[in-house]
Amino acid sequence: MPSQVSINGSRLLGRLDAFAAIGATEKGGVNRQALTLLDRQARQTLTQLAMQRGFKVFQDPAANLFIRREGRKADLPPVLVGSHLDSQPSGGRFDGALGTLCAFEVLETLEDHAIKTERAVEVVAFMNEEGCRFAPGCMGSMAFAAGEIPADWASLTATDGAAFQEELHATLASLPEAEMRSLGFPMHAYLELHIEQGPSLEKENIPIGVVTGIQGTRWLDVSVKGQTAHAGTTALEYRRDPMRVVAQILAELYGTVMPSDPSVRFTVGRMSLVPGAINAIPETVHLTIDLRHPARDAIDRYDATIRDAFSQGAARYGCISEIKQIFDMPAANFRSDIVKTVEAAAIKAGLASKRMLSGAFHDALFVNRIAPAGMIFVPCRDGLSHNEAEHVEPKDSVQGCYALLLATIELAS
Amino acid sequence: MPSQVSINGSRLLGRLDAFAAIGATEKGGVNRQALTLLDRQARQTLTQLAMQRGFKVFQDPAANLFIRREGRKADLPPVLVGSHLDSQPSGGRFDGALGTLCAFEVLETLEDHAIKTERAVEVVAFMNEEGCRFAPGCMGSMAFAAGEIPADWASLTATDGAAFQEELHATLASLPEAEMRSLGFPMHAYLELHIEQGPSLEKENIPIGVVTGIQGTRWLDVSVKGQTAHAGTTALEYRRDPMRVVAQILAELYGTVMPSDPSVRFTVGRMSLVPGAINAIPETVHLTIDLRHPARDAIDRYDATIRDAFSQGAARYGCISEIKQIFDMPAANFRSDIVKTVEAAAIKAGLASKRMLSGAFHDALFVNRIAPAGMIFVPCRDGLSHNEAEHVEPKDSVQGCYALLLATIELAS
Repeated sequence: MPSQVSINGSRLLGRLDAFAAIGATEKGGVNRQALTLLDRQARQTLTQLAMQRGFKVFQDPAANLFIRREGRKADLPPVLVGSHLDSQPSGGRFDGALGTLCAFEVLETLEDHAIKTERAVEVVAFMNEEGCRFAPGCMGSMAFAAGEIPADWASLTATDGAAFQEELHATLASLPEAEMRSLGFPMHAYLELHIEQGPSLEKENIPIGVVTGIQGTRWLDVSVKGQTAHAGTTALEYRRDPMRVVAQILAELYGTVMPSDPSVRFTVGRMSLVPGAINAIPETVHLTIDLRHPARDAIDRYDATIRDAFSQGAARYGCISEIKQIFDMPAANFRSDIVKTVEAAAIKAGLASKRMLSGAFHDALFVNRIAPAGMIFVPCRDGLSHNEAEHVEPKDSVQGCYALLLATIELAS
Repeated sequence: MPSQVSINGSRLLGRLDAFAAIGATEKGGVNRQALTLLDRQARQTLTQLAMQRGFKVFQDPAANLFIRREGRKADLPPVLVGSHLDSQPSGGRFDGALGTLCAFEVLETLEDHAIKTERAVEVVAFMNEEGCRFAPGCMGSMAFAAGEIPADWASLTATDGAAFQEELHATLASLPEAEMRSLGFPMHAYLELHIEQGPSLEKENIPIGVVTGIQGTRWLDVSVKGQTAHAGTTALEYRRDPMRVVAQILAELYGTVMPSDPSVRFTVGRMSLVPGAINAIPETVHLTIDLRHPARDAIDRYDATIRDAFSQGAARYGCISEIKQIFDMPAANFRSDIVKTVEAAAIKAGLASKRMLSGAFHDALFVNRIAPAGMIFVPCRDGLSHNEAEHVEPKDSVQGCYALLLATIELAS
């Protein structure tokens, strides 16, 4: 049967255009942040499409949106397929939307071809994956996996001043067509298609990434404190310059950490110098380190290396370093049967694939805590994401969607 | 005669307290920025004190304030002694005020002891030395030395939104007692007492610094541009990380420039990473370099070294560097007869002294362009300046003022 089935590529590409128009930016990207009016509009649009096809629509108290197509056996846990609809403030058209619309295309294709699956298949759009208007990211899948909304979210305020509670309730209220269900439910498996957000598939010309897991991430907040003094009047022997420490230690770490281990990621994305005057030695340098690795003990080991390096470097120049862990997300390893199912789907679709880790976190990371999850990556141009220039070739969207269809049918049978 | 003369130390210290109250901050510092109401109040206070002693008060179109005590020969160019009354936003009580009030104490001491000098002695308080509310710094002395106000100052706006033109006119209007005179006039010499703003006199326990010149300063604005990408998904071989370039090049420069030459100063006081997300490789790193040396050709040489290092380092990692010179102040070398006069005054006062360069710029740098200038430095605690904790021991203020008196008498005779 599946060999006869194919998805409706032009419908999928049309949907991508239609959703890209909701919050479109001048530069061709999307600004559709979580729980905004535009986010609600995207949810409503998807709900309308679902109801036109006769699918039932649900939402849970975390504003996760579900679209259900029944299987033969209503009592079997369903296969969940999806991603998210919210975007970064200067985001692209594909991050999240592609996975959600491919999942919906899978549902429509099943319906078009009257394919009866054993299990129900549900499309999901998780709330606030990006985490830029309200932190943390992956709120919807986190609450879904936990079965409850963390109490401290009640006091969250957006970067634009809006209260999380109010925005969540308004978002829920804007979708009266959706039946409310409780948070979390038994599932057979979860599949998520996503753009790679990195350059390797494109560079290696491979259309399908079979994701084996999501690497662990730890964020460190580093402060090195010295003493501010006049740039012109302070000779070297009187300087306690924290920037000198930071330059030296970072040069060491850039030169050793990533070059020595292909699985580690080491990134300094933020730095500030206080007081920040051109003619003053800084009193303090603040910086962040984003450290990733598929193995927890490796993260611990690099963490210790970083702490030692800063502490010794600071002492060398009369400074003091302080390092705080501000975020720690353990790695997720996808179950091998799901990985094999995705791989088999790519083969069946006649598409080259390679196994790879996800460097970014995704809703699948959280869902994997309560049910086997898997992911399909498709190439994106220059590895660009979180960027208005984010681009996926139409062919890659269609092929990825086809692999997702085959994997879904397999899991739902 | 001078051996009998001594300044009135308690009067000087009382004046320092009185002026520190104008714009006093909670932490014991001063916020009396140029051309504000508080700056006008300080000018008015000094004017009242001058008029009580029968001195004549002048101001010029740049709001430089002058207090004149006539000498025997009214047609001889006067000796100018002074500094500035404006402060940093979180400034100390001594930066500028000490030199201005010591100069006024010199004038009062001459008057107390009825010492007739050949030349008139004039106290000056230059407008906006600090340059923090309106840039550049040393506006008053710059206009004074140039004999005109640069045309482009007309459009300047303060950090608090005020227009330079309006604030200048209001400041001039707030002092109707002062007779207007034109910008610049023939001078015999200029003397300025100032706190060292560095730690060396205090550490070496020397009360008098005989300043031989002011080192040259060049500011470079450095940008290194790479490509922003996701911290988790981008492997080392795909990274064009400008922060890696900056860390490596700065580590090199910190390790070579200052250690190899005791006269050079190399400081990175500002840095920013764009976009500045914890989980993104920066697209661009911006930083500033403050480079100082007493010799112009040395500044040119280090400038070239810096440019080469960044350009090669950037190329190594697929980045591009751009360096713009945003400020360039040639060194000033004080005339040897003035230096010797200051040195002789310290000896006469029985005070240890050492010759030294000024690392910071001062009004003396500009005045030196039109007449021989000299400076006396006094120690300050921990080298701290531009800081509310700035502190000068009473003894050091009084001793410095005494040396200033003796040098002034010598120059005016």
